[in-house]
Amino acid sequence: MTQVEPFDLIIFGGTGDLAMRKLLPALYRRFSAGQLPSDSRIFGVARDAQSADAYRNTVEKALMHAVPDADRDALLRFLAQLGYQTLDVQTGTGWPELASACTASVPRRRVFYLATSPKLYADICARLQQHRLNGAHSRVVVEKPIGHDLASARAINAAIGSAFSEDQTFRIDHYLGKETVQNLMVLRFGNALFEPLWNAGHIERVQITVAETIGVEGRGAYYDATGALRDMVQNHLLQLLCLVAMEPLSSLQADAVRTEKLKVLRALKPIDAGNAARLTLRGQYRAGVSAAVAVPSYLQDVGKSASTTETFVALRAEVGNWRWAGVPFYLCTGKRLAQRVSEIIVSFRPVPHSIFSDTGTPVMPNQLVLRLQPDESVKLWLMVKYPNLDDLRLRPVPLNMSFAEAFGGSPLDAYERLILDVARGDLTLFMHRDEVEAAWQWIDPIVHAWAETADTPQPYAAGTLGPDAAAGFLGRESLAAA
Amino acid sequence: MTQVEPFDLIIFGGTGDLAMRKLLPALYRRFSAGQLPSDSRIFGVARDAQSADAYRNTVEKALMHAVPDADRDALLRFLAQLGYQTLDVQTGTGWPELASACTASVPRRRVFYLATSPKLYADICARLQQHRLNGAHSRVVVEKPIGHDLASARAINAAIGSAFSEDQTFRIDHYLGKETVQNLMVLRFGNALFEPLWNAGHIERVQITVAETIGVEGRGAYYDATGALRDMVQNHLLQLLCLVAMEPLSSLQADAVRTEKLKVLRALKPIDAGNAARLTLRGQYRAGVSAAVAVPSYLQDVGKSASTTETFVALRAEVGNWRWAGVPFYLCTGKRLAQRVSEIIVSFRPVPHSIFSDTGTPVMPNQLVLRLQPDESVKLWLMVKYPNLDDLRLRPVPLNMSFAEAFGGSPLDAYERLILDVARGDLTLFMHRDEVEAAWQWIDPIVHAWAETADTPQPYAAGTLGPDAAAGFLGRESLAAA
Repeated sequence: MTQVEPFDLIIFGGTGDLAMRKLLPALYRRFSAGQLPSDSRIFGVARDAQSADAYRNTVEKALMHAVPDADRDALLRFLAQLGYQTLDVQTGTGWPELASACTASVPRRRVFYLATSPKLYADICARLQQHRLNGAHSRVVVEKPIGHDLASARAINAAIGSAFSEDQTFRIDHYLGKETVQNLMVLRFGNALFEPLWNAGHIERVQITVAETIGVEGRGAYYDATGALRDMVQNHLLQLLCLVAMEPLSSLQADAVRTEKLKVLRALKPIDAGNAARLTLRGQYRAGVSAAVAVPSYLQDVGKSASTTETFVALRAEVGNWRWAGVPFYLCTGKRLAQRVSEIIVSFRPVPHSIFSDTGTPVMPNQLVLRLQPDESVKLWLMVKYPNLDDLRLRPVPLNMSFAEAFGGSPLDAYERLILDVARGDLTLFMHRDEVEAAWQWIDPIVHAWAETADTPQPYAAGTLGPDAAAGFLGRESLAAA
Repeated sequence: MTQVEPFDLIIFGGTGDLAMRKLLPALYRRFSAGQLPSDSRIFGVARDAQSADAYRNTVEKALMHAVPDADRDALLRFLAQLGYQTLDVQTGTGWPELASACTASVPRRRVFYLATSPKLYADICARLQQHRLNGAHSRVVVEKPIGHDLASARAINAAIGSAFSEDQTFRIDHYLGKETVQNLMVLRFGNALFEPLWNAGHIERVQITVAETIGVEGRGAYYDATGALRDMVQNHLLQLLCLVAMEPLSSLQADAVRTEKLKVLRALKPIDAGNAARLTLRGQYRAGVSAAVAVPSYLQDVGKSASTTETFVALRAEVGNWRWAGVPFYLCTGKRLAQRVSEIIVSFRPVPHSIFSDTGTPVMPNQLVLRLQPDESVKLWLMVKYPNLDDLRLRPVPLNMSFAEAFGGSPLDAYERLILDVARGDLTLFMHRDEVEAAWQWIDPIVHAWAETADTPQPYAAGTLGPDAAAGFLGRESLAAA
């Protein structure tokens, strides 16, 4: 493990949920592992008028909760690097103080992490520019959602872009920081075995599933204006699709990776009013039982009497190029489903001719299953001979490339990796502005199609596999298989 | 497990090593597993004048040694099915008694297992014909060596063929009864993943190794007249080569399998005086240390002052067809080597372009390693990402399809499978006459080339990896890698 250069990290929304639950624990873990230099500084920034000591107390509690086995000494040293600045983005209170706190005697990397509502991105960037905090040593990190459609995404990107160049802008999608997702690139391009098979000639279908058991969890107002398609598919699922479908990379440079992903997004065949009924399926959860607990309906969760917002969506996407022509990419995500699982299933075509039909054992097609949640693992399903003396009886066996098994140790958190990449200035695992906009360009017509057709989401009971029609829509890799 | 139909098994050489160490223990195991009907009968046949009781006593001791956990009750029931016939193949003594013992009231399958010197095959078959024991219900099983060159193999096959049709003739090669070898067929034709890669475009080399730690072990006279090429390569190694190289099967019928193997043997590019020096390497062991014990030289083992017989041979074979043009098939076998290992290594080509060179980790080519001895296993070596937060560091990881791990239980003995196949009349895992002759047709010119060039085997110390030149000859998959 290599230490990164000293840097200052300024977290806007420093008292918020993302900062407390994800960013600060990730930073602490990298600090205690020795990857953050002891003269790096972290500033929490928020509207709350409180002292740095009070902030450190809050952070200390959050870390003790998130990292129960934290080393006391390391924790205190970490907290000592922590500062706080009360600041109002809009009125400008606190900005001069932040600017002077950020100014080190020797210029060093400054990372502004915007863990706030996207509504504030434009104002924050304008203020950073006003206070000359957007120089070459500065970077800005933004979280999804970047807009709710193409126009709003463009506006946000333009606002960020007026203060920061594209090379300074780190659009985070924490799915890309997961080991399994990076392993997908290693499997594809580090093994001569897969690439010759990685096309419509040998792959029958791809399914990307992000199933959640939770409901809208206090994000009701935001979620009801957004829905599963914009909340999950536009970013996480499409990013995973890109990594599966992209052409072989010429290098791991950010430009090379992002250009290939962009090509995939731009090659997605349009879904619009003409084909949305055939290529999409929406659902909305009703009351039901989740993890043996009775849970309310979506409408109860968001406190409305009616809503056409989808909490479940399945799409049959297609990448219109020579490699993937005709191969369905099923994208499926939903809340209040039976099981929490995120995975990519690449299903190879069946053998063209079975010589084992006489033995009475079906030859199951090969599958590569990359699981991102709850456990990270990669499994290759092969048929092998079942040991016996009578015939060639076959069995599918999962060849396991699970990380814990192969290498020991616990999985690494995506945010740890991504924050280090920001400090290092490596954009490979971050989204380019063009990607975000290309994704919206594909998503918008679907949203419009649903609005035009007045089609309403199909109901499903919480804790089930989604709407009844989902199994038929998804075909053999329905959620039940996941 | 299914029970086979009742049958009579007559073992010529019934008091010999093969019968006692392999055949009878295999039969007992299948009997105690319930696969041999209780009215099946087994006759030991040999020159020794002894009673059936005396024979059963000998067999009992052999079984208690070979199957230490044998069930006493099952053992006694098995011995009760055992008969003995004193017989002299040449003089004819005992034949009428054998003939009448074999004649059941209801015609049933009769299997004549010739566990004798091949010199006796012709006489035995002639006598079986004379006593009308070669009818449609009869089968004959013969062991290697079938001849010591093409002419002698043809003579043996003709002698057997004058009494038994090809469909009645089971030429055993116990390597084909191994689970791993059958699994090779399942891997190739039960998975859509491998076949598209199974050619010169994607496979760089194949190495088939059968390394032994033992010396000639009392077979000195036979071995000195034979050598490693004829003792091991002509049968076991070429059979394995056939299974790796053959075209996709249209069925598992014996004819389909054997025709494809035959095509491979006939497509082998000739090795003769013109290229033998380049494509072959011979060795002969000197005194050394094997398993921490000082062992004598080959010449001491065979009691001679000089010999040009090879105890080690490495060949660079090539299958001259579109699928395999230019791909070296290294065949390597020897006695008194460092390690006992039989395996097939299929090495895929390296990735054409590495995007990981900046990460400082080499991308190792994929390999499929099928191990037959000492433990049966199949491993697929893939590159995966080594979990870390800095970069895409790669590691080769063996995906394990080992049978014990995947299915539990101990591996099954090849003879158990093959004897059941004889009883069932399934010729799939047995060699056709044409295969044996085609193999000799390729082997003979190599033997002649060595004789013509007066090239002598290179010395190697017992307990080592073979002659010094072997590593260079075999290239990167030398024995050290095995």
